Order: sequence, then structure tokens, then C-alpha cells
Amino acid sequence: MCKIADFLKAGCEVSVLFANLHAYLDNMKSSWDLLEWRTQYYETVIKAMLTSIGVPIQKLKFVKGTDYQLSREFTLDVYRLSSMVTEHDAKKAGAEVVKQVDHPLISSLLYPGLQALDEEYLKVDAQFGGVDQRKIFTFAEKYLPQLGYTKRIHLMNPMVPGLSGGKMSSSEEDSKIDLLDTPEAVKKKLKRAFCEPGKVEDNGVLAFVKHVVFSLFDT
Amino acid sequence: MCKIADFLKAGCEVSVLFANLHAYLDNMKSSWDLLEWRTQYYETVIKAMLTSIGVPIQKLKFVKGTDYQLSREFTLDVYRLSSMVTEHDAKKAGAEVVKQVDHPLISSLLYPGLQALDEEYLKVDAQFGGVDQRKIFTFAEKYLPQLGYTKRIHLMNPMVPGLSGGKMSSSEEDSKIDLLDTPEAVKKKLKRAFCEPGKVEDNGVLAFVKHVVFSLFDT
Repeated sequence: MCKIADFLKAGCEVSVLFANLHAYLDNMKSSWDLLEWRTQYYETVIKAMLTSIGVPIQKLKFVKGTDYQLSREFTLDVYRLSSMVTEHDAKKAGAEVVKQVDHPLISSLLYPGLQALDEEYLKVDAQFGGVDQRKIFTFAEKYLPQLGYTKRIHLMNPMVPGLSGGKMSSSEEDSKIDLLDTPEAVKKKLKRAFCEPGKVEDNGVLAFVKHVVFSLFDT
Repeated sequence: MCKIADFLKAGCEVSVLFANLHAYLDNMKSSWDLLEWRTQYYETVIKAMLTSIGVPIQKLKFVKGTDYQLSREFTLDVYRLSSMVTEHDAKKAGAEVVKQVDHPLISSLLYPGLQALDEEYLKVDAQFGGVDQRKIFTFAEKYLPQLGYTKRIHLMNPMVPGLSGGKMSSSEEDSKIDLLDTPEAVKKKLKRAFCEPGKVEDNGVLAFVKHVVFSLFDT
């Protein structure tokens, strides 16, 4: 979110993509209704967050995956790409992002291609994500030109570890500070945070201070 | 073609699907223009063939893959199915139909699912194909109900071997009699046909006589 603030302050046009089609397909756990409410919630909260720290949001745009990912043109491109990409290469590209299981679903192989095509259909100059996206970004740089499209710039952020150590996880409540957490809840989570004496790596609190808090004071 | 004649004579409504999207994606060797001409050619020839042997063609319909396979609804179903089917099961289903290579393309894994969905979108009661389609048919019977659709009936034909022995191949000119072959060309191909003395299996001429010529005299 701090990087998005930086982009906006620098005068960039920023599009935030709500991957609602992907979310729907993730085991079909969520209904379209729920996803619609969720995207509205995120849009409201992101705008409020940025405004509260004095970021101009005139150039901030929100797009939903279903706005274009089910169109005839996009779909044909998904098939064209599927006729160029081997199973092996798709698996490699998704290795750090797609959950690794014994019997992977076909959807996990489609994932890197869909994300690559998003760049073209959102007409962006650059895509921004965590360093865990590196292989997907490399994949996009290889295949978009093969489809006759422009290769995009890729910007990456370090990953901030979770408060309980290891990767931050949306399913592990204590690993992250939620936007709707009360001040008491935040205090409680920080007190519980995993901080091994003398060890700065994999320390969620120090990483958060370095990458989030300090970067806000810098500006 | 003889079976299609049987279906029509029995009063069935028959839809012939021109898989032009699949043909386009097959290495993108053919342009849309060429495919459009090719479907028109096949439609004309199939109608002429059936009419010439006295088959009523009022209930015969021709559909192109692109008429519905790029629609929003079909595409969403392809993704829903991709979130249910493992790579392993898709590969198994296509084993006899999809060309087996060291590094399979993602498109080869999508193939069985697309063919299963065709049944729903063409609103057919039964699908007809060669026995080489058996695993794809089994796949369709398993997954259509999981998407909330009806399980279809599957009808299968024995495969007629090619005139030069082995599988009939569209890329091997001498293995098949083409619709536009002159009588001289047909004679030449039949004289060249591979007929091992004393062996009735894998004999293209005997199989053709049994399954095609005799079945026409029967009626």
C-alpha cells in the first residue's frame, strides 16, 4: 500500500485489479454476491487509507477481473497462449505463487497466462507485485511479445514476514494486522508477535517498521 | 458418415460440429479465412454425399465451435471445470486422442473439458465418435454432472484402418480415399493398399468394405 501511495504521489496512474474471477474459481467457496460486496469493501477501505495519509487518489482506478476476463478477445488469447505454453513451463512460472499439491488442477496452470494477459488488457506500462511474483513476471515478459503484445516493466516489493514468523497468511489471524482491528487488538497481536532475541531476519515487527512505518515518515 | 446416414434415416436430429477454434489453435497453421472456406466446403460435400445415397438431410445441422465456445457462459464453465479437473485426469482422458509429446502444451489438457462442454452447449442427447474417444466420453460422463449438467449418451464406431496399414491419417495421402479423388486416383490408391496375405486385421480395404460398403447395401 505504501508503494501505491508512492506511485500516486509521483503522478502515476494506478489500476488496482480485483481478481474476482480467480476468487470465485478458488474452490468456488465464495458466491458472486459476496465477491461483489468484498470488492466494494476493499475499494472503500483502500481509498480511505490513502486519503488518511494525504495521498491524492484522482489517478487511482479499480478494475474487476470479470470486467474483461470473460470477453471473447481475452478468451481467444488465453487459448492462443495455451497453445504455446507447455505444462512444464506454466508449472515453473507459478511455483512460488500457486499452492503446490500432489495432483495440481488445470486452473493452476492457466494462472500465469491469465496474469500475463491482464497487463495487455489493462493497458498498463508496468505491473507491481511482491518478489514472490518474479517467475510469473518473467513468464509474462517471454510470452506477451510472442502474442504480438508489448513486454511490460515489472516492479517488485520485498515480502514483509508475518507477525507470528514465516509468510504472512490471510488465514492465520495472528500473522497480520487487519484494517478493521481495534487498537486493543493491534496491541495484543504485537505483544504476541514472534521476535527471537538477536535475530533480525524473519521478524515481522522489525520488517513492518522498516518497510511500512519508516517509509511513511520519509515522505 | 454411414452412421450419420443411419441416424438421419432413423429420424434423429444430427448436429455436425466444425471445431474451427480447435483447428485455429492447432499451431495457428490456418487463418480464420481458410477455416471459413473449409467449413463451407465440408458442409457442401457432406450434404452432397448424403443426398447422393438418398438420405434425408432436413434434420442435419452444422455448427461452428466459435459460434459458442468464446461466449462468456462457455468460458466461465471452462474455468469452473479447470478448477475441478487435475492435470493427471485431463492427460489420461486425452491419451488416445491428443498427440503424446514430451512437453505437452496446456491446450492439450483443456481439450477433454472443451469437448465435454460441447455436449451441454449443443444441447444434444448423445455424442457420437470413434472408439478412440472412449476416455474423453468417460470424462464427460463424470464431470458434466459435477457442473450441474446432464450426463449424455455416448455412441461409438469402430476405427477403420488406413489403406497403407495402421491408423488412417489426414497427413498421409495414400492412407485414405479423398472426396475429390478422381476414379483413377482411387484405383491407384487401392492397388497400392497394404494387404498382407492371410491377415484380416489391420487391413484397410477389408475394413472399408465391411464397415462402409456392406453397410450401404444393407439398407
